[in-house]
Amino acid sequence: MITSTANSKVKRLVNLQKKRKLRDEENIFLVEGVRMFMEVPPQRVRELYVSETFYGKEKRRIREVLGDRRVAFEVLSDQAYAFMSDTKTPQGVMCVVEREDYGLQEIMRPSQEQPFLLVLDNLQDPGNLGTIIRAAEGAGATGVILSRDCVDIYNPKTIRSTMGSLFRVPFYYAEDIVKETGRLREAGIRVYAAHLDGKISYEEADYACPTAFLIGNEGNGLRDEVAACADVYVRIPMKGRVESLNAAVAASVLMFEAARQRRL
Amino acid sequence: MITSTANSKVKRLVNLQKKRKLRDEENIFLVEGVRMFMEVPPQRVRELYVSETFYGKEKRRIREVLGDRRVAFEVLSDQAYAFMSDTKTPQGVMCVVEREDYGLQEIMRPSQEQPFLLVLDNLQDPGNLGTIIRAAEGAGATGVILSRDCVDIYNPKTIRSTMGSLFRVPFYYAEDIVKETGRLREAGIRVYAAHLDGKISYEEADYACPTAFLIGNEGNGLRDEVAACADVYVRIPMKGRVESLNAAVAASVLMFEAARQRRL
Repeated sequence: MITSTANSKVKRLVNLQKKRKLRDEENIFLVEGVRMFMEVPPQRVRELYVSETFYGKEKRRIREVLGDRRVAFEVLSDQAYAFMSDTKTPQGVMCVVEREDYGLQEIMRPSQEQPFLLVLDNLQDPGNLGTIIRAAEGAGATGVILSRDCVDIYNPKTIRSTMGSLFRVPFYYAEDIVKETGRLREAGIRVYAAHLDGKISYEEADYACPTAFLIGNEGNGLRDEVAACADVYVRIPMKGRVESLNAAVAASVLMFEAARQRRL
Repeated sequence: MITSTANSKVKRLVNLQKKRKLRDEENIFLVEGVRMFMEVPPQRVRELYVSETFYGKEKRRIREVLGDRRVAFEVLSDQAYAFMSDTKTPQGVMCVVEREDYGLQEIMRPSQEQPFLLVLDNLQDPGNLGTIIRAAEGAGATGVILSRDCVDIYNPKTIRSTMGSLFRVPFYYAEDIVKETGRLREAGIRVYAAHLDGKISYEEADYACPTAFLIGNEGNGLRDEVAACADVYVRIPMKGRVESLNAAVAASVLMFEAARQRRL
């Protein structure tokens, strides 16, 4: 059992929590908490760390989740576990998970349904991003494209906010968001920008066809060069003195309108 | 100029940031940042605190916002200001604002429009609450009712997330949320619970009539006794393996569907 917070494994995990660059180099991310642990596809778990208390109580549950999968496994004293945890009240289970790489082609051509994509331009808030991924799965979006300068989808706060949708919604970081959005249009996907200058109200468009929504940064909205990639600007009509909505709210209002239309 | 972080006024403001009880006792709240300061109705500003740097640059702006209003006014050294600020990169302006009390009667009977209310049961995340208040104004909700055990609407994080909507959306903390929700029904307002057991999809109901939406706690949803107050349970149909949405997203999807129907 690891009891020292100076242990090299503990130090490595603390750094992996904090540093995107390290996570990128190892092509992994960290998942913490019981609920999220149970959502991880077992074949992607590479290492598992549990607190002494969790191990005592939940041996069977660990086995249920991992099945036949053999993973590097360590028990930590509760104190050492708390030290490396990203949460205030640690549940005592953390795993190192292998990333899954999705290609733009498979995101643009989902097998089952008409493409229903979300394109995020320079989104910065980790909680917002996670909330959007969760809502995207719920609304039936077939994939999410992120500009290179978006917050890291593997940020611990983002992962928590997805509530497990991270494992189920295909996503892709675009090197050049303007170019990739152009490719969507070439593939026959209609691109809608959520924009204050929108000429039509969002519910007037037809989202049953292949559809992508462009969503901008929390404070500044879409960059002009990204907005210029859209076929149509749509606006969400606003009462009172509200100029714009929280990015996750705006994305969700659009996505659930698309979901509503696709049910008709 | 105040330069010491041990100054009694600085200490009082730090405590007001942190402690709901103190804010309640004085019947005030704190507003920080340039944008929020410009949203405050001038007649409600009781005290104003600015950093030396902000005062040097923005004397005229302060005068524009306050107009003829005379308020207690203090300049702090940048260091003392940063000490009392709730933000990491303080903008240098904070004010103490008088609360406005709304009665349940005026929330139930808005003068201009059919009632369009949101009832929040035990909401706990300050950012979620602020995001909801902002979306409520944008969707044209006429008021928000909160159960006694919701997070404080005057929490600094909530205030920031409202982006100023706090000053424009009437709200009311209900002593007994079950009883108050009953009064809505007696007043002819149709009460919809967002619920996993909803028998109809949310867009099948008619929200042009007087409407209230019940929204539950982030982790646990609506309490049974509160859900039992509803006329109708509605659900937001979900794809994938998503069970529920973030509370602000769920509230917004319902509110903007009501807004869409009311525009028709």
